[in-house]
Amino acid sequence: MAELDGVLRELAAEMAERTDRGAVASYIPQLGTIDAGKFGIAVALADGQVLSAGDADEAFSIQSVSKVFTLTLALGKIGDALWKRVGREPSGNPFNSIVQLEMEHGIPRNPFINAGAIVVSDVLLAGHQPREAIGEILRFIQFLADDDSVFIDREVAASERATGFRNMALANYMRSFGNLHHEAELALGVYFHHCAIAMTCRQLAQAARFLAFDGRNPLTGHSVVSTQRARRINALMLTCGHYDGSGDFAFRVGIPGKSGVGGGIIGIVPGVASLAVWSPGLNENGNSKLGSIALEKLARTMNWSVFAS
Amino acid sequence: MAELDGVLRELAAEMAERTDRGAVASYIPQLGTIDAGKFGIAVALADGQVLSAGDADEAFSIQSVSKVFTLTLALGKIGDALWKRVGREPSGNPFNSIVQLEMEHGIPRNPFINAGAIVVSDVLLAGHQPREAIGEILRFIQFLADDDSVFIDREVAASERATGFRNMALANYMRSFGNLHHEAELALGVYFHHCAIAMTCRQLAQAARFLAFDGRNPLTGHSVVSTQRARRINALMLTCGHYDGSGDFAFRVGIPGKSGVGGGIIGIVPGVASLAVWSPGLNENGNSKLGSIALEKLARTMNWSVFAS
Amino acid sequence: MAELDGVLRELAAEMAERTDRGAVASYIPQLGTIDAGKFGIAVALADGQVLSAGDADEAFSIQSVSKVFTLTLALGKIGDALWKRVGREPSGNPFNSIVQLEMEHGIPRNPFINAGAIVVSDVLLAGHQPREAIGEILRFIQFLADDDSVFIDREVAASERATGFRNMALANYMRSFGNLHHEAELALGVYFHHCAIAMTCRQLAQAARFLAFDGRNPLTGHSVVSTQRARRINALMLTCGHYDGSGDFAFRVGIPGKSGVGGGIIGIVPGVASLAVWSPGLNENGNSKLGSIALEKLARTMNWSVFAS
Amino acid sequence: MAELDGVLRELAAEMAERTDRGAVASYIPQLGTIDAGKFGIAVALADGQVLSAGDADEAFSIQSVSKVFTLTLALGKIGDALWKRVGREPSGNPFNSIVQLEMEHGIPRNPFINAGAIVVSDVLLAGHQPREAIGEILRFIQFLADDDSVFIDREVAASERATGFRNMALANYMRSFGNLHHEAELALGVYFHHCAIAMTCRQLAQAARFLAFDGRNPLTGHSVVSTQRARRINALMLTCGHYDGSGDFAFRVGIPGKSGVGGGIIGIVPGVASLAVWSPGLNENGNSKLGSIALEKLARTMNWSVFAS
Repeated sequence: MAELDGVLRELAAEMAERTDRGAVASYIPQLGTIDAGKFGIAVALADGQVLSAGDADEAFSIQSVSKVFTLTLALGKIGDALWKRVGREPSGNPFNSIVQLEMEHGIPRNPFINAGAIVVSDVLLAGHQPREAIGEILRFIQFLADDDSVFIDREVAASERATGFRNMALANYMRSFGNLHHEAELALGVYFHHCAIAMTCRQLAQAARFLAFDGRNPLTGHSVVSTQRARRINALMLTCGHYDGSGDFAFRVGIPGKSGVGGGIIGIVPGVASLAVWSPGLNENGNSKLGSIALEKLARTMNWSVFAS
Repeated sequence: MAELDGVLRELAAEMAERTDRGAVASYIPQLGTIDAGKFGIAVALADGQVLSAGDADEAFSIQSVSKVFTLTLALGKIGDALWKRVGREPSGNPFNSIVQLEMEHGIPRNPFINAGAIVVSDVLLAGHQPREAIGEILRFIQFLADDDSVFIDREVAASERATGFRNMALANYMRSFGNLHHEAELALGVYFHHCAIAMTCRQLAQAARFLAFDGRNPLTGHSVVSTQRARRINALMLTCGHYDGSGDFAFRVGIPGKSGVGGGIIGIVPGVASLAVWSPGLNENGNSKLGSIALEKLARTMNWSVFAS
Repeated sequence: MAELDGVLRELAAEMAERTDRGAVASYIPQLGTIDAGKFGIAVALADGQVLSAGDADEAFSIQSVSKVFTLTLALGKIGDALWKRVGREPSGNPFNSIVQLEMEHGIPRNPFINAGAIVVSDVLLAGHQPREAIGEILRFIQFLADDDSVFIDREVAASERATGFRNMALANYMRSFGNLHHEAELALGVYFHHCAIAMTCRQLAQAARFLAFDGRNPLTGHSVVSTQRARRINALMLTCGHYDGSGDFAFRVGIPGKSGVGGGIIGIVPGVASLAVWSPGLNENGNSKLGSIALEKLARTMNWSVFAS
Repeated sequence: MAELDGVLRELAAEMAERTDRGAVASYIPQLGTIDAGKFGIAVALADGQVLSAGDADEAFSIQSVSKVFTLTLALGKIGDALWKRVGREPSGNPFNSIVQLEMEHGIPRNPFINAGAIVVSDVLLAGHQPREAIGEILRFIQFLADDDSVFIDREVAASERATGFRNMALANYMRSFGNLHHEAELALGVYFHHCAIAMTCRQLAQAARFLAFDGRNPLTGHSVVSTQRARRINALMLTCGHYDGSGDFAFRVGIPGKSGVGGGIIGIVPGVASLAVWSPGLNENGNSKLGSIALEKLARTMNWSVFAS
């Protein structure tokens, strides 16, 4: 893997020089103060190695990347019953959020848009206090990353809560259709906290590795989810993982991925590796600008694509 | 491949017995009279073999499956300039057609919804009479299928033209935004004729084979499109190939595919095979009901998935 | 007015016999238990008389009829500055509520749809505690009705609050656009309480009388609002007073009116009279079914129409 | 009427000096070349007098003002059966046209938006050749205006036809729902021709006079339509006559009116007068900018409002 190591290093160097870095999310102060110049990348391989370059050991707010892990947990908890409350189709609409909820009677299009992830949080709340549900999510991610230092940035969580009027609107709207079983405040409490989890690229790549190996830890053979479930989560990432830029990401990069407004993206190369990249500036669809570009270049260089023969 | 042969035979037998076959499209009389009991399946392999079962040698109206081939031709003609006139995102909206055109100022979401395919037809018209453009499309598909007997069902084309008011509305609407360069009548003439092409499962599987092998004929090595383009067409099929059921198809079947209201579906297993299935009854999203189920079963049995490790 | 007296009596008798009474609103238990057989009507004239028939002295939940009075108060408080935060156009859309808020960036179409009335409540909160704002509204309506027995049904208010998830969604959604200046909870507290005001037809007809006489009490000459403002409130009632049935009410009845889901409607015959009718069953647009029919018949019999020569 | 004469003269003088005249419609060359400095106004009174000022004797393209007359004719032809094919509600949506048709399954919201007027044209076609239907409309307007010099500007009609892709889309879309009984080409032929009728303010005021006097010619007592129908057409003008500025016009001016993109507006003061104003520059809702302002000023000066006591 000397080759991949060099590729990552060159990529990080190239990205460090680019000036078209997009705009850092600023809807809460804690995100807006991040240095737009950061760039990190990490690749977790079957043999346990994690190669990295750039700022790959600096923790950042994973935001919506966390939705892959909460979805995994919720499927473990209630299985396919989840799909009665959340769809599996791309939102496919710049005017998506509330409009589509109205059209589709309170059923979010997929678990990766905000409304869908709030339903997932609501599922994780069943039988728990919010504090317990949040603890369960954090411990699951620490377990996947094999690193107990993964933490929740409580300042970010508090700030999202104080300004999250649109998410409050979504939650109440779904509740008006009976598709939220707990108080909006409680479900959002879980949601805001898991979005505020802070991780490094290295930790994220490691945590997502089970998705690249049919649901198992390739070293120990330990199964996190079934083969079928792992593939299906990958399918959801490919079709829905980048908001209204999902089609473009599949077209350009050709692998399943999930982005967050903190500038992180995870990517899955089935049978080969799991990836994490971080660059805080966002493109017009709210996905990491340089992160997307770096993954496109990396995939092309390494000939990684789920569509390759 | 004795094993696959048996799998296909069993699958065809199982499907023949099912009574929940969906409803045959009836918007034009020529489609409505098709026997809902039909079921055919064919698999084209790298070594040139085409295995099949059921009614795999009976020609049917390929309808929107043809959009994969016209897209391929249009990309060959104007390359990435196409993407200024058509998007690459799932439509993701049961109320898609005209609503989204209004929201997005006459730019269709992707080349596989009707509006997008009409723009593709408009591209193929440039410098040609409709008759010539139609002839070019037919010859391209005959070449891919390696079979000159592929034909256009002119009765179906005439019938679609006579009743295609909504497509006429879409075409005129795009023309009002300047995104149709020829008269609506002319672009629709091309569109209705390529949708009316009739093919067998065997011919379709063969014609789609280049997409499973990075754009090349695996026997001759002859290149139809570049590796990158083949993968990208596969990506578009995975995210947009089944209308508002695209996410579900990716979730259940896990391979790129494209359906038509005639009941046909093509599927791509990169590096392994191209598939075609046909059963005229449709599910609630307008995709072949038994065709989708058969592909899901076949993919599971053969462990075919672009998301597999 | 012997004649009008007889007309009202006959109308009440005719309505008492009808069996097609629509469905009583049931979204909160307190409304659902009302006897669908009730019918009352009252007409307040220039000379101070209030003629009535049927259950005109029974108090009912005025619900959205209250929005006419809160709009009047808010205009008194901040004048035309209100129109920067609320539009003056019919919502004109069965899918109105949240969809339109998204399209129009948090500005409700008019002050009579829920979102608009919540903004009006927010205006009335400025410088006040919710309790004070609610008190001010109640005292204003008591003053207009010249009757201190008008009261707020606190059980209805509490019940609306406990189940008003969609209104909570609307309020939070507007707050995400900066068009709500107080906490959603507080503005909704005011909103739910003024919707829970209980009045009789007699009280309502009396309270609305100033709108029929260019803003003045026709007996004392005392001015409630300016002539221009009274006419403009009438214009808003005519174009927006019956949700997505506003055009139909103008077409059939021909006078400004405002309905509530409690089954009440007020109507204005400029220069002649103000009316109130009550029948709890609603038509498909959420307006009192028999109330609308009774007003249409009354207007035709009395030749009342703002469009008459 | 010396007073009104002076008011009109002053108004015309004031409007002549204003420089904020809006933008002249330019979607067809014939409209774009009109001098934005034009302003005319005319008032038809009960006694047969027509007072006027400014460019009141210059013919202009009446465009959508013609829809009041075609609606009147269609109601005469099929009566209330029309309301099965067209609604009576304000469109209330800046994104109205095709979006609403999709939501409401091909039934236009009202007869004054383009889609609704195309259905009205379709009604007038029944049993006729387009040429005959167009002739019938022209003769009806000549009769109402008592002036045979009213004519159709065929160059305008031809030009609208050549560029009217969006109207072609609307017509085909309605035909896909079965709500257009003739070929789109034919219905649009009628539509484009009646929109291309050219009239002076004086002719227009005269032609609309029956609506101010309960459907009758106030001099002869001759009835054009029933009292009820006249009032109902007025109600439709008040709620739907100015596209998405209808509420604002009712709020500011307080009388029924109908505008056209040629810059003309007719207004009705029941029992008193019918008005026509013309100034080619349009405001952001597509209604004559100075025409709207002039009518607001005139109504205020003369104390004309359907909401006055």
